[in-house]
Formats: sequence, C-alpha cells, structure tokens
Amino acid sequence: MKPFLSNVAIVGASGLVGSTLLELLEKRNFPIKHLRCFASSNSQGKTCTFKNKMIPIEVLSTDAFANIDLAFFCTEATISKAFVPAALNQGAKVIDCSSYYRLDPNIPLIVPEITLDFTHQLVASPNCIATIISLILAPLNRAFGIKRVIATTYQAASGGGRPAMSHLIEETRAQLLNQPFTNPYYPFQYAFNVFLHNSTFYQDGYVEEEKKIIEETKKILRHPTLLITATSVRVPVLRCHSVSLNIECNSPPIDARAVLICAPGVKVVDPPQFPMPIDAEGKEEVFCGRIRTDISQKNTLEIWVVGDQLLKGAALNAVQIAECWIQNFT
Amino acid sequence: MKPFLSNVAIVGASGLVGSTLLELLEKRNFPIKHLRCFASSNSQGKTCTFKNKMIPIEVLSTDAFANIDLAFFCTEATISKAFVPAALNQGAKVIDCSSYYRLDPNIPLIVPEITLDFTHQLVASPNCIATIISLILAPLNRAFGIKRVIATTYQAASGGGRPAMSHLIEETRAQLLNQPFTNPYYPFQYAFNVFLHNSTFYQDGYVEEEKKIIEETKKILRHPTLLITATSVRVPVLRCHSVSLNIECNSPPIDARAVLICAPGVKVVDPPQFPMPIDAEGKEEVFCGRIRTDISQKNTLEIWVVGDQLLKGAALNAVQIAECWIQNFT
Repeated sequence: MKPFLSNVAIVGASGLVGSTLLELLEKRNFPIKHLRCFASSNSQGKTCTFKNKMIPIEVLSTDAFANIDLAFFCTEATISKAFVPAALNQGAKVIDCSSYYRLDPNIPLIVPEITLDFTHQLVASPNCIATIISLILAPLNRAFGIKRVIATTYQAASGGGRPAMSHLIEETRAQLLNQPFTNPYYPFQYAFNVFLHNSTFYQDGYVEEEKKIIEETKKILRHPTLLITATSVRVPVLRCHSVSLNIECNSPPIDARAVLICAPGVKVVDPPQFPMPIDAEGKEEVFCGRIRTDISQKNTLEIWVVGDQLLKGAALNAVQIAECWIQNFT
Repeated sequence: MKPFLSNVAIVGASGLVGSTLLELLEKRNFPIKHLRCFASSNSQGKTCTFKNKMIPIEVLSTDAFANIDLAFFCTEATISKAFVPAALNQGAKVIDCSSYYRLDPNIPLIVPEITLDFTHQLVASPNCIATIISLILAPLNRAFGIKRVIATTYQAASGGGRPAMSHLIEETRAQLLNQPFTNPYYPFQYAFNVFLHNSTFYQDGYVEEEKKIIEETKKILRHPTLLITATSVRVPVLRCHSVSLNIECNSPPIDARAVLICAPGVKVVDPPQFPMPIDAEGKEEVFCGRIRTDISQKNTLEIWVVGDQLLKGAALNAVQIAECWIQNFT
C-alpha cells in the first residue's frame, strides 16, 4: 500500500500549537509531499524548520490554498472564520483547532479514540480540557452510562500560548529577585497565584471556557442530555492541565479501573502514585489516577486526570485525526 | 468592665502558626498578664518578640503549665496528645489547633462565627480548609439546608509550614536559574507543579486531609448526615487556600449572595472580579465569589472560596475563640 503523500498547510505555524504540530508531523513521519507554513504578518520573514529544511513562513491570504490537500488551522476563532472557507473552496481538507466550528451541528468534533469521520471536508478538534476529559468519560459512559459530571480544572500557562508562559516565568523570576515585572499577559498576578479563567463572562455566571468544556464534551460523547458543570482555574504550571472529575454513573462503576486500563489513549496511575503535570509533559497519553468511589453519593466516581495541553489537548489530536484520514484513504 | 488579664502560654511558638498567633495577640491587643512561649528543644536558646519584649522560648515539659490560664497548642497531633492533658491537669484552658481532639465527641470543634462553647476546658480549632468552607456553608445551610457538598481544593505551601514554603521558593529559584535543588520538603517537585495532598492514604482511596475536611465540616455544621466529598490538591501558591465548592441545597438557593453578604467573617467579591490567593493574604475574612447556579442540577450552587490559611485557617480562629471566652468571663 503506497503512502498517501499530500500537500500540507499549517496556518498559525509560528504559534505554540502550530510549532508543536510541526514537530509531531516530523517525529511521526507524517507523509508530506510539500509543506507550506502560514502565519500573520508579524511572522513575515521568519522560517520554520521541518526535517532539517527551512520553510519560509508565508503571510496568510485567501488564495493561499491552491493545490493544498490538507490544512491544519492552529489559530484563533476569528482567523478560522475568515480563512477556512477559502481553504475549503480551494479543495483542501481542513482540521480546525480553533473554537469557531466546534459547536456547529454540521461539523464533526473529533477525538479519534472516541469518534471518527471520513465524510466531511472540515472537522474541528476540541478544546483542550474537553479532549482530555472525554478520553476518560467516553469509556466510562459506554460501560456504566454517565448521568452527571463536575469538572474542576487546574489549567497550565500553555493554554494561553507563549506570552502566557513568559508571563509566568518572568513574573516569578521578578518576584524571587524582588525586581519589577512590567510585561504581563494576563491582567492578574500569575506568579504564586491562581485565578479563574479570564474568558468572557456569561449572564449565568459561567465563563466562555467553562461553556466550551460543557458543550463540547456533550458533543464529543454524543450525549446531549449529559448533566455537566465546570469551573476553570489557571494555576502556575507551564504546560499540562489537571482536572478533578466527579462522575455520577447510571449503574455501579465497580470495575472503573479495568475499563480505564483498556481505554485507548489513557494510562492509569495507581496509588500511592498519581499523575502530576510535570510527569505528563511531552507524553501522548492522558493520565488518570486516584480512581475512587465518592463516599457522598452512590454510583459516583472521583478521578484525577492530567494531560499535556499542547499534545493530546491540541496538536497531537489534530495530527491523529489526519493520520486516521490517511489510513482510510490508502 | 475590667479586662481579663491572663497568663498565656503558646506551645509551638516558633512554628509558622505559633508565630502568626503571637503577632495576632499583639496586633489585637489581647489582654495578657504574662506570656510564656514553648517549643521543642530545636528552638532552645531562641526568643520570640512580643510588644517589643524578648520572650525566651522554653522547652516544653509536662510541668510547664503551672499558673497558666490559657494555653494555645499550635502543634502536631502527637505533641497535643502528649501535653494537652498536663495543661488541663494544671488548670489551664486549652485551645488546640492540632487534629488530635477535633473529632472527639466530647470536645467542641469551634469556629466562633458558627458555634461557641464556654463550658469546656478544652476546645479544638479545625483544619484550615474545614474552617474556611464552613464559614460559607453554615449560613447557606441555615438558609436553604445543604444536602451534598463537593470540595475541590487549591492548597498553599503554608499548610506545610516554613519548610514547605522554602521548598516552593528555593526549588522555583533553582529551576529558573537552571541550578540543582537539593533540599526538598515534599517528595514531589513543587515548582510549577501541582500534586495531590501527601497525607496518609485510606483504603477507600481518600487521603487523611480529605477525611479531616469531610468529618470536621460535618461536626462544625452539626450536620452529621451531610453528604460531602473532598479532593485535596497542593498548588504552587505561598499562603492562601482556594476551594471550588459545589453545593446541593434542599430548597432553591435563590438569594445565596444576599445570605453570604450578611454572613459573619465572609466577604463577597462580585464578577467580573473574583477572590485570588494573593489578594486574601493577610486578610481576616474568607472571600467568596463567582456565586452561580450549577446548570447541571437543580438547587445547586457553585462558589469559589479563598482564605488565608495562616489567619482564619489557623491562628486567627484560635485567637477569636479566646477573645469570645474573655468577653464571656468579663
């Protein structure tokens, strides 16, 4: 079987997710005939490195996608909104990592371990927390049925990109050296502090990030009646997200650990060990541990989950979608 | 009315809670005739400062409490177990901040805003998280009745005392300067990491800290049938604890914010602001914010709570108990 060699575009190639995606394509030997990298005019004149070759970063335009077979959008929703239609019109298949199309009922929202789609020209890759917790929730939902989920997050700086990671590092350094810090990315102190996710507030008191987690998780699991709430918190950690999950099942989840051991993309860490952000860094799996029965309610589990926000939470999921497409075409 | 001037002892005076308690007694002008400070032999030869006077730190012994009217124990459970009986035998009233007596059905567990006791010679001051969340839960329980609570914590270094704070600061410094770090207090990396509370594991998968939160909260609220679960997580923050609370009430908690605004010791922070650890540092109140209706379940609230672990979470609560006693005696 001949590998499917395609013309690939990465939009947002200079960003944190885009450059991680580029590394993954190289490391996983993704079949590419010709690679083009796009970013905003801020990155004009810069280059990306791919398999020891310098790839110039081109400024994105609506006629950029001629002859492109596959385009990854590692961009903000506004950029995807503006440029994905052009990519589709020019015949490219598109994997969009932004939030713009995720809740569109006509666009599949894909975590390949849970659900696949080979029929749509455009698919969306979910929010980092929704992806990470869905890997845990999907097998439990199949085994026991899930009624209600309470997700409480410990989100890393990488979710805000390089400027957020710089904010954390440089502000922490300034505090320890008793020096001023003048270049914050977030409007809050990040060094030695935690703060609620600073996305838009909704009238019901939830923030946009929490709504994404709630709605995208329902869509990924194809469980529209799932009862789910989320609280999104930023912690001074560099790149892995942690989540405390409280999961009420319809039937007694007596062999939950066995279900999770068999779940694709999941690694169970048994007590007295438990997953930690620093251990999950650079790892492709989502880790879970402290699987225990909630003593306050029947049929309910407490699980601690950790995953690399840049890998399974973003770039890796997009690459895995592309790999599944390729396997289906060859 | 003449102030009640008493002979006061602080056991564990050189520790973080003990020295914070000493500062509070001075700042709040607590009436003291004679002050004695006790610690282990490690602190022999050292002194405490109180109202510009040097107080020698004495090595604790079972005959230390002659003529002491009031003894604060800011100690580990093993020290309280060994020395509280001696203090009681020698006639002192005792406020014990350790966990040793907290769940003893004959010993009151006191948060003065919620419950008081003037009849017992010995009372216990609760676990930091139990104290902080009880200030929020007690008024809600009175107003609406609370059925079930899920507490997910973001606990600061101060809960582990000075060595834990040093671990966080020195390991973070070492990481930023790319230098080795050789003097950890916790068995885990603390810099830019989160980890589950490292107290003893129980067979049901909970750790000791979580059991303390669960059982002590029930006792403080005098609500033995309260359904409550907890997940305790250490975050790289220096001294204030945060907690995400999911609270199921028996009746619709429609005016929860108004109830909390009127609650003693509580300060409500309204959106788009919310409480943060760095803002709560040195503050006596417990702060709550993002009070919202849980969209996943009826009669349920989500509330974000932050309190200074060393103040209301420990030393301040003990001083407030003593102040109430004094008011009752004079």
